[in-house]
Amino acid sequence: METFASRLAASIAKSDSLACVGLDPPADLLTDSQSGSDPEQIAQLLTNWGIDIIRQTHQFVCAFKPNLAFYEAFGSAGVRALEATMRYLNENHPDIITIGDAKRGDIGSTSQAHAKYLLDHLNFDAVTLNPYLGIDALSVFLERADKGGIVVCRTSNPSADDFQMLELGGRPLWQHVLLKAATEWNRNANCLAVIGATRPDNLRQARKIAGEHFFFLVPGVGAQGGDVQEAVKAGGNQAGSGVIITSSRSILGSPAEAAAQLRSEINQARPRLA
Amino acid sequence: METFASRLAASIAKSDSLACVGLDPPADLLTDSQSGSDPEQIAQLLTNWGIDIIRQTHQFVCAFKPNLAFYEAFGSAGVRALEATMRYLNENHPDIITIGDAKRGDIGSTSQAHAKYLLDHLNFDAVTLNPYLGIDALSVFLERADKGGIVVCRTSNPSADDFQMLELGGRPLWQHVLLKAATEWNRNANCLAVIGATRPDNLRQARKIAGEHFFFLVPGVGAQGGDVQEAVKAGGNQAGSGVIITSSRSILGSPAEAAAQLRSEINQARPRLA
Repeated sequence: METFASRLAASIAKSDSLACVGLDPPADLLTDSQSGSDPEQIAQLLTNWGIDIIRQTHQFVCAFKPNLAFYEAFGSAGVRALEATMRYLNENHPDIITIGDAKRGDIGSTSQAHAKYLLDHLNFDAVTLNPYLGIDALSVFLERADKGGIVVCRTSNPSADDFQMLELGGRPLWQHVLLKAATEWNRNANCLAVIGATRPDNLRQARKIAGEHFFFLVPGVGAQGGDVQEAVKAGGNQAGSGVIITSSRSILGSPAEAAAQLRSEINQARPRLA
Repeated sequence: METFASRLAASIAKSDSLACVGLDPPADLLTDSQSGSDPEQIAQLLTNWGIDIIRQTHQFVCAFKPNLAFYEAFGSAGVRALEATMRYLNENHPDIITIGDAKRGDIGSTSQAHAKYLLDHLNFDAVTLNPYLGIDALSVFLERADKGGIVVCRTSNPSADDFQMLELGGRPLWQHVLLKAATEWNRNANCLAVIGATRPDNLRQARKIAGEHFFFLVPGVGAQGGDVQEAVKAGGNQAGSGVIITSSRSILGSPAEAAAQLRSEINQARPRLA
């Protein structure tokens, strides 16, 4: 069995990229007359939208990240498009990591149902997860060394501080989450953490806490205001890796150019071994 | 516009019940040959399963709670069944509250996509939400007084203590969440909180913190070991209300009898106005 860690490393090496393109079908993707058409046709339009972006950007990225909410917003037709998009990715780009941005987090048989849907049915390589319920909500994912679990840790929204910055025993909550993610949850080297790009100081602290070999998924560059190179310098490790920088809305206008530029900006900021 | 609070009160009064039946289609619902059939047929079998339970139990409950993960585990066919089940509930039992057990929690346009899917497309009256990202992940739901947001607060799984019991200023994290849920997030009287039935001491504390008029959604009775009457006494308010006791797997064998018994057990433990 290939582990998630080795697959991620191979994808980064092959693409020479730490860039990830997010697939967030816009709410206004369909014209009014298309919205009224049958589910089969809606699914086809959404699928084509994703495939077009994948075709234009695949050579510049180590990962694609469909955001489930944007597909679900179109109902079961959207979920059919997600299934078709994942089939396309698995068939045509099996080396590129697929991240299901789902932010799930539940326990017992519900957690198993999430894994069945996300890891088996859709065949994502990794999924984003919410840590509020503790390891019970994550273990179904992290037990599988061929898959990755990406724990939401420090987000970039204003109200992130409602709880993530509450100090417990001298440490904000998000650092407690990160400590667990980087140690006890990471026995299969397949636990990662989400840290927003708009908080480079937190990325710097996170790297110190998590050590050299841990990966951060970093959203929030571009449309959300985070600086790419600052994020790479603050969050990256000494080997010039350790971060996956993800961009969604910012690439929609001209995907090929935007993805090429994202890779290039990131690579300029990576320390490179001679 | 009818508010969520008034709809919930009316549903409880009409059914004389604080019981909620969860709809969790079991993973082994389909035979091997059925699993291989076309999505249309799978969706029909799942829909029929739900409608059968609804027919047998609707007179005993104030709410139905489909758990999205169990539908999603069947892929887009499962989501089609969820859509059909919600259409059936909205057409046949418009007075019964529908709770989408989704535990979503994300920000910005993702949060709006969740609301579009859950509140508009599926037309749930209320949804369960995860508080880790703060109010930004909840406000799209709580701003709508005709809908309810049910914040996961204190869960019954062993690792709930990983974070929920971390203390700040003499209060565990879950109580910080509850305090916000019961005050600043509750301006439309449409914020509720999930507190597990297996922790009656926490239910008692939660009632003290949240005051008389707040509602708890209480899972964990039956299969998960929580005692119904203890949960009602610990979590209920002085008016004999304030809790929605939800049961899913325990009712699967004989839904009508189990739902009737759940209502009856709850009602025996409710203080009743003379």
